[in-house]
Amino acid sequence: MDIEKVIGASRGWIEREGHSILNEYRELLSLPNHAADLPNIEKNCEFISQMFAKRGFEMRFLRLDGAPPIVYGERLVPGATRTFCIYAHYDGQPVVPENWTHPPFEPTLYDGAMPDGGRPIPFPSSAEAIDEEWRIYARSASDDKAPIISLAAALDGLEAAGIGLTSNIKLFFDGEEEVGSPHVEAYLRTFDHLLNDITAWLLVDGAVYPTGDPTYKFGSRGRTALQLTAYGPARPLHSGHYGNWAPVPGQTLARLLASMKDDDGKVLIDGFYDSVIPMTAFERSQAEQAPNIDEQLKEELALHSTEGGGESLNLRIQLPSLTLRGLASGSVGDKARNVIPTTAVAELEMRLVNGNDPDNMCDLVEAHIRRKGWHIVYEEPSLETRRSHKKVIKVVRDSESFPASKVAMDRPEIQEVINGLKAFTKDRGVFLPATGASNRIYGLIFNEIGKPGICINTVNRDNNQHGANENLRVGNLWYGADILSVLLAM
Amino acid sequence: MDIEKVIGASRGWIEREGHSILNEYRELLSLPNHAADLPNIEKNCEFISQMFAKRGFEMRFLRLDGAPPIVYGERLVPGATRTFCIYAHYDGQPVVPENWTHPPFEPTLYDGAMPDGGRPIPFPSSAEAIDEEWRIYARSASDDKAPIISLAAALDGLEAAGIGLTSNIKLFFDGEEEVGSPHVEAYLRTFDHLLNDITAWLLVDGAVYPTGDPTYKFGSRGRTALQLTAYGPARPLHSGHYGNWAPVPGQTLARLLASMKDDDGKVLIDGFYDSVIPMTAFERSQAEQAPNIDEQLKEELALHSTEGGGESLNLRIQLPSLTLRGLASGSVGDKARNVIPTTAVAELEMRLVNGNDPDNMCDLVEAHIRRKGWHIVYEEPSLETRRSHKKVIKVVRDSESFPASKVAMDRPEIQEVINGLKAFTKDRGVFLPATGASNRIYGLIFNEIGKPGICINTVNRDNNQHGANENLRVGNLWYGADILSVLLAM
Repeated sequence: MDIEKVIGASRGWIEREGHSILNEYRELLSLPNHAADLPNIEKNCEFISQMFAKRGFEMRFLRLDGAPPIVYGERLVPGATRTFCIYAHYDGQPVVPENWTHPPFEPTLYDGAMPDGGRPIPFPSSAEAIDEEWRIYARSASDDKAPIISLAAALDGLEAAGIGLTSNIKLFFDGEEEVGSPHVEAYLRTFDHLLNDITAWLLVDGAVYPTGDPTYKFGSRGRTALQLTAYGPARPLHSGHYGNWAPVPGQTLARLLASMKDDDGKVLIDGFYDSVIPMTAFERSQAEQAPNIDEQLKEELALHSTEGGGESLNLRIQLPSLTLRGLASGSVGDKARNVIPTTAVAELEMRLVNGNDPDNMCDLVEAHIRRKGWHIVYEEPSLETRRSHKKVIKVVRDSESFPASKVAMDRPEIQEVINGLKAFTKDRGVFLPATGASNRIYGLIFNEIGKPGICINTVNRDNNQHGANENLRVGNLWYGADILSVLLAM
Repeated sequence: MDIEKVIGASRGWIEREGHSILNEYRELLSLPNHAADLPNIEKNCEFISQMFAKRGFEMRFLRLDGAPPIVYGERLVPGATRTFCIYAHYDGQPVVPENWTHPPFEPTLYDGAMPDGGRPIPFPSSAEAIDEEWRIYARSASDDKAPIISLAAALDGLEAAGIGLTSNIKLFFDGEEEVGSPHVEAYLRTFDHLLNDITAWLLVDGAVYPTGDPTYKFGSRGRTALQLTAYGPARPLHSGHYGNWAPVPGQTLARLLASMKDDDGKVLIDGFYDSVIPMTAFERSQAEQAPNIDEQLKEELALHSTEGGGESLNLRIQLPSLTLRGLASGSVGDKARNVIPTTAVAELEMRLVNGNDPDNMCDLVEAHIRRKGWHIVYEEPSLETRRSHKKVIKVVRDSESFPASKVAMDRPEIQEVINGLKAFTKDRGVFLPATGASNRIYGLIFNEIGKPGICINTVNRDNNQHGANENLRVGNLWYGADILSVLLAM
């Protein structure tokens, strides 16, 4: 691949046809796209299907009852030995129109970001130069319709420059990502005959690294969670009449929670780190080379110090986490009352890495709880059970549990992609072994159908994804076209 | 005092005039009495004033702007060397009529408690025998109009039997106890010339001991409280992207709370018990002699064990308490989200005993927090402050703080009362050095105007005080008349 020629093709097309790219984008963004709004969902499918049919794809809708269709497409390249499947989602978060400056499905162009004093401007004519700092405000402008438009522009640019595709390309556009993709597992299984020749999935979603550098991730953490309920007296007690006699469940629970983690964030549960499959030397080197954003984040988040004694965020997320995401007993603030509450509840969440089995990790937590003298129950304990044990705790495991999904960055077909990407990014790319988050799609692709995935982030970080005034920086739409051109032609 | 004669006077009167006692009670209970409903409050005052004017008292209303009046009365007894002031309150909790079986201000007689299958019956005629198990349902039936009726019956019984009063009697009937008696301090100060010859206040309010035994208390615990807010990141963070790196405020706070109390409920804060003035040997013996209700309570409350390694409730409430009455960080249950919350809040309450100064106790807690490495602030910390310290905590002291109020049971004038009461209770009376609760009136009387108080509990425990279907067991109305007869004639 002649990288300069490929980028030249992308940029040349953008320079000549930027206004028509924005026009197609505007039309797509005008279609309301909440997953539950099936009539409008169908309009999105039609529009996208026609977009790629025009560009040489054989398109079809994969359908399961009651679910938004998968917009599926394939373009086979004679002689290609590799098949990439591009994943994006065309549905969006629900909107609260009164919180938006403009109606969320009337895409509005700005000459800069609103908080920086940007002002609305008309969409450009063909003669007009387009500034990369312009923003388009609309629902799904960044999450996740931008990659669909970038891909179309990349295909057009390569075509115009006479550069052929080097891989078979499949499209798999999800219509219910923002409601948790409840049918995607069934889709992957039902239509596996279409998917089992895929070399690697390219998941194009999410924002670039805080430095703005191109970002690629080769896995995501798994997840599991436990709800703990500690029991005190059977009814709320007057804290005067019974204080210093009746056990206080929040206090007892605090002692248990304190025993799980030290002041530097090290998890003290026996075996918690034992099943971790360590990063390879290559992976570690990539994680270490990523720009260290810790100081910037600490400033932004008003943190004096972090867990792990100063180890960087990029390394810390390659380990399992134990997070107390919720805690409640009695009431606080204006609602605080003079009572000894009956229960105290802690919501513990774990993010998992390669090697961690969700059930085993929960078992370790329960073993720790038992070692601390607690009697564990899995349903509401009877009064008799409460009378029979000094410390009774109910443990409820979260149904949303899945292991990490990470492809080894050392695998040859992945190395090939990494080398291609590095030709593009030069010394600026961020290659992270895994994101700290838990991507369900990623997990299904990797763990259920055994295919590697690479996350490609293209949109600007300040995109207000999920909120009001979601937007895309135009330069990031162009950047998406560049990187997809490279992947198509590598 | 010939105790048999005094009790005989009370019982004889009840036997002959029980129906007219119930009638007067019924009339009083028909008057709505929420402290904010000043027109009806005035009706209560008028009614009560006429009740005691008829019984030889010089009555007047003590008035302060905007507050329910104190119904004040005095009956001086030639040659008396002692003056008792009887405190009760004529106001009641607000009502939610739809939760009541009968309208709360239409007193309804039952032949037993509703949950035991009691049925409504007509109020009795003069010929009819009255069963002690009958119940009267109405707001304030037990809290706290019953003592007012018992007192009237006691006065009538002694009068009818020709038994003279042995003490001067003053009446001080509060009209805003259920809203926290906001003006009682001003009343005590403004009218102190009426009150400074009082030997002891008799506060007649509240329910008898769980065994049903006559109960007297000689003090109440003080109270103070602290709200602690621990800080994490400046905005809620995605627990996937930042878990295992960003500090989790609930976790950090749990470690602090755990350090404050051991698993047996012993407070680990340096000096926490140092300022306690221990009970006298007499007081301890009385607390120890009170029937031990711990096993009964543990059964009822489904507790396996209690703080203090099995020491009895009656002894435990003679020490200060530290109760975690509220705890919150992030959300739990259906609302739990995958975030690292920005703050965690703990509501700590202390009940205080003689010797504990509220401010000093708060100082001890703060010193403990500092020793654990926290930086304390008293207002919302700036981001700069949060950046400058590893662990930042905001401490807000509760405005409702006051010390314990307890008269030594060994004082001669109190011993005199105790001896009189013991003649009545024989081996059944419960004499507790102090209640575990914090009685604001008690505190004001003791700490502000320097007078001893004795709490006298007369009503049945299952009275639904403050709730719907508040009720009084008729036998407890009679018992109130007995004990007040003893106090008037001792």
